[in-house]
Amino acid sequence: MRLSRYFMPILKENPKEAEIVSHRLMLRAGMIRQQSAGIYSWLPLGKRVLDKVNAIIREEQNRSGAIELLMPTLQSAELWQESGRYDDYGKEMLRIKDRQERPMLYGPTNEEMITDIFRSSVKSYKDLPLNLYHIQLKFRDEIRPRFGTMRSREFLMKDAYSFDLTREAALHAYNKMFVAYLRTFDRLGMRAIPMRADTGPIGGNHSHEFIILADTGESEVFCHKDFVDFDIPGIDTDFDDVAALQGIFEKWTSRYAATSEMHDAAAFDAIAEGERVCARGIEVGHIFYFGTKYSEPMGAKVLGPDGKEHLVHMGSYGIGPTRLVPAIIEASHDENGIIWPQSVAPFDAVVINMKAGDAGCDAASTKIYGELGTAGLDMLYDDTDDRAGAKFATADLIGVPWQVIVGPRGVAAGEVELKNRRTGERETLPIDAVIAKLGATR
Amino acid sequence: MRLSRYFMPILKENPKEAEIVSHRLMLRAGMIRQQSAGIYSWLPLGKRVLDKVNAIIREEQNRSGAIELLMPTLQSAELWQESGRYDDYGKEMLRIKDRQERPMLYGPTNEEMITDIFRSSVKSYKDLPLNLYHIQLKFRDEIRPRFGTMRSREFLMKDAYSFDLTREAALHAYNKMFVAYLRTFDRLGMRAIPMRADTGPIGGNHSHEFIILADTGESEVFCHKDFVDFDIPGIDTDFDDVAALQGIFEKWTSRYAATSEMHDAAAFDAIAEGERVCARGIEVGHIFYFGTKYSEPMGAKVLGPDGKEHLVHMGSYGIGPTRLVPAIIEASHDENGIIWPQSVAPFDAVVINMKAGDAGCDAASTKIYGELGTAGLDMLYDDTDDRAGAKFATADLIGVPWQVIVGPRGVAAGEVELKNRRTGERETLPIDAVIAKLGATR
Repeated sequence: MRLSRYFMPILKENPKEAEIVSHRLMLRAGMIRQQSAGIYSWLPLGKRVLDKVNAIIREEQNRSGAIELLMPTLQSAELWQESGRYDDYGKEMLRIKDRQERPMLYGPTNEEMITDIFRSSVKSYKDLPLNLYHIQLKFRDEIRPRFGTMRSREFLMKDAYSFDLTREAALHAYNKMFVAYLRTFDRLGMRAIPMRADTGPIGGNHSHEFIILADTGESEVFCHKDFVDFDIPGIDTDFDDVAALQGIFEKWTSRYAATSEMHDAAAFDAIAEGERVCARGIEVGHIFYFGTKYSEPMGAKVLGPDGKEHLVHMGSYGIGPTRLVPAIIEASHDENGIIWPQSVAPFDAVVINMKAGDAGCDAASTKIYGELGTAGLDMLYDDTDDRAGAKFATADLIGVPWQVIVGPRGVAAGEVELKNRRTGERETLPIDAVIAKLGATR
Repeated sequence: MRLSRYFMPILKENPKEAEIVSHRLMLRAGMIRQQSAGIYSWLPLGKRVLDKVNAIIREEQNRSGAIELLMPTLQSAELWQESGRYDDYGKEMLRIKDRQERPMLYGPTNEEMITDIFRSSVKSYKDLPLNLYHIQLKFRDEIRPRFGTMRSREFLMKDAYSFDLTREAALHAYNKMFVAYLRTFDRLGMRAIPMRADTGPIGGNHSHEFIILADTGESEVFCHKDFVDFDIPGIDTDFDDVAALQGIFEKWTSRYAATSEMHDAAAFDAIAEGERVCARGIEVGHIFYFGTKYSEPMGAKVLGPDGKEHLVHMGSYGIGPTRLVPAIIEASHDENGIIWPQSVAPFDAVVINMKAGDAGCDAASTKIYGELGTAGLDMLYDDTDDRAGAKFATADLIGVPWQVIVGPRGVAAGEVELKNRRTGERETLPIDAVIAKLGATR
C-alpha cells in the first residue's frame, strides 16, 4: 500500500479523552474513530490488525475441531424468555421493538440461539461431539463505556458453544478450547494465564479466565511465577487425545492463579516469596462449562446409545477480538508508539523513501516495495513528501516490525538502512540483502 | 472436512415456507436457518460460500484502489438529522433508544457516517481521490421480508463511498466501481448487465443497477442481446487510466438496457426483433453518483489547489453478499440441487466413500482427501455410513463441482469414478490421475 493513496489519519496531539495508553495510541495511529459513546469505526490500519487477529483465532478454533457459522446480531426476545434470561439480564441488554412492535434485542451473547439451532437439527448422540462458533458483533449497553475498544458497547466476539452427551465428554470439549486458547494467545504474541473465574450471568460451575499481564491492566491478579515458563502446546497437538489434553489442563492449573474476585490470600501467602507474582492483568478470554443450564429449559436433547433421551451438556468459550487489539498494545509499546508482534502487524514492513521524487530513491524504494510484496509480505510504502522526522515518527507510532530507510546517499552506494522497531537495532545493507532478509521472515 | 464431524443439517422434505428455488435449496442443503422474520443464521456450509463471495468482492474492490475499513452497525440519530434523512427514511429504519434514552438506529446504509469520518480528517485535495468501503451488516425493517436471504431484514452489504474534488473526477471514481463490478460478477460466475436506474432514497442523478438474468428473477428487464457477449475488463485493467475506463463504461452503456421502472417501450421496439431480450432479472449491485447531496448539508469540504474550500463530490456503491448467494443459485441449479461456480463453491470436491469401514475404500478415500487438501483444495469427505443413494443425493444437492466416488470394486482395480456436477459427465480414472486432474483445477 502506498501511503499517499492510503487513509491513515494520524493525530499529532494526544487525544484528551483517552485514559489508557492503548486507547491513546489507537486514536493517534488512526486505527479507530469513536462514532458515539462506546461505538467505534475501525479505520483501515485498525481493520488490518483486527483481520489478522481474527484469522489466528479462526485457525486455532478450526484446528481444535470447532466449526464456524454466523448467527445474526438481532434476536427475538422469545428465545430469552425460554431460558429465563430475558428478565434477568438487566439494562446491559439493548431491547428493541421492530415496526410490528415485536420485542427483539441486540445479542449480548448467543447461548439461547445456538441451543435453538442445535435442538432443531441434532437428534442423536452420533452427531456429537459438536462445537459451533462464530465471530460476530455483540452489544452490551454499559453505563460507562471507556478505554476505547477495550470496553466498548458494540464489540466483536468469537463465541464457541460445545454440545456433548455426558459431563465427562463436555469436560474434554472444555479442555480442547483451553488448549486452543493457550495456542491462540501465544500466536498473538502474548502470555495468557488461565485463572479460575466467577461465572457471572452465563452461569455454570467450571470456568477460567485467560489473563495477560500488563502494567496498565484493569485489575489486580495473583499467580505463581512458573506460568511464565510453561510450554505452549504444539501445532501437532492431538485434540482427540483425551488424556493428553487433560494433562495439559492439569499442568496449567497446577499452580496458584486468581483474579482479585477469586483471590485466596492464605493460599497465595503459602507460596515461597520469590515465586509469587502480584501484577495487573487484562482479561482476554473466558471459558465456561455449564452442563444443562440451557439445554434443560430449552429442551435440547439427543437420543443416547441406550435409546433414551438425554439433555446435552454444554459449554461456551469467548474471546473478544476488538478487546484483544488494545490488550496487545498495552502489553507491547514504548514511548514512541506501538510495537506489533509480527503475527498481527498491519504491515510486515514499511519502506521509507527519504526523498520522494529523487529518481534513485524512487527506483530503490519501488523495487524493495514491489519485490517484497510479490514475496507475500504486507508492505507499506511511505512515498509522501513529508519531512524525514515526520516519517520516522509515523513509522514508530504505527509499530510496523521493520523499517527500510531509503536515502539518496545510501542509494548511491547501493545500500539502505534496516531498522527493527522492537529492538531499535539498525544496520546498513545492500538492497538485495534487505530483500532477502525480510523475504525470509515470511 | 469429514462429513461425520461436520454440521450440515440436510432437510429431506421441501420446506413449505420457501417460495423460490434458491430459498428452498439453501434450507434443504443446510446453508441457512431462519431465526425470526427476515433474520437468518448462516450455517457452516452457507458461511463458506458467503466467505468466498466476500473474498472476491474484497479483491476487486482493493484492485480498483478502494480501501477497507469497518463502521459499526449502530449509529447515532444526530448524524441522520444533519443530512435530513432521519425523518425521511420511514419505517424501514430500525429506530432504537439506548439505556440513556439516546436515539440510535441500526444502519440501513452509511452515507452519513462515512461523510462524518471524511470531514473529521481529510482537509486537502491532495488526499483525494479516496474510496472507502466496508462489508458490514445492515438492517432494513421490511414490512414483508421473504425469499430467504434474497430479501431479508438483517443482511450483509459491501458499501463503498468515493470522495473527489470535482464532478469529473467523481465520474472517474464511478467508472472504477463500474469496472470493478463487471469483474466481480464475472468472477462469481454470473453475467451482470448494468442498467440505468432510479436513485430512490440514496439520491443523485447518475446511477446503474447491475442485473443478472435468471428465469426466476424478481422483476422484468429489457436489453439488447449484445450484452451477453461483451468482454469483461481484464485483470490487467489500469484503474488510473481515465480514458480507458470511460471507454469501457461507454461500451457497456451503448446498448439499450432497462428495468421495468425505467423502461422506454418505444426505444426498445426500435431494436431489431432478433436482438431484443425481454427476461427476468435480479438486482445484484447498485452504484450512485450523487455529487454534493451529503457533503453540502454535512459540510464535507477540502481545500483545493486554488486555496479555496470546495464541497466534495461523492458516490456510493453497493453489493449485497447475502443476496448474491441466492442470486447465484437462481442462475445455476437443476432439479437435483445447486450447481456452484468453482469460484464460490463451499468445497472444491467431495470424496464419497461408498463403503465406509472397508479398509481399501477408507485408504483410497483418505489418500485422495488428504493429498488434495494438501494441494490447497477445499475438500469434503463423506465418511458417513449412509447408504449410497443418500450420499449421491446430498452431493448433488450441495452442488460441489466435483464428486470422487470411491467404491470397493473400483478400488480393487486402483480406480475411482469422477463426476462433474455441472455436466453430469462421469469417468473412471486411476487414483493418482484423479488427484492430478483435480489438483490442476486449483
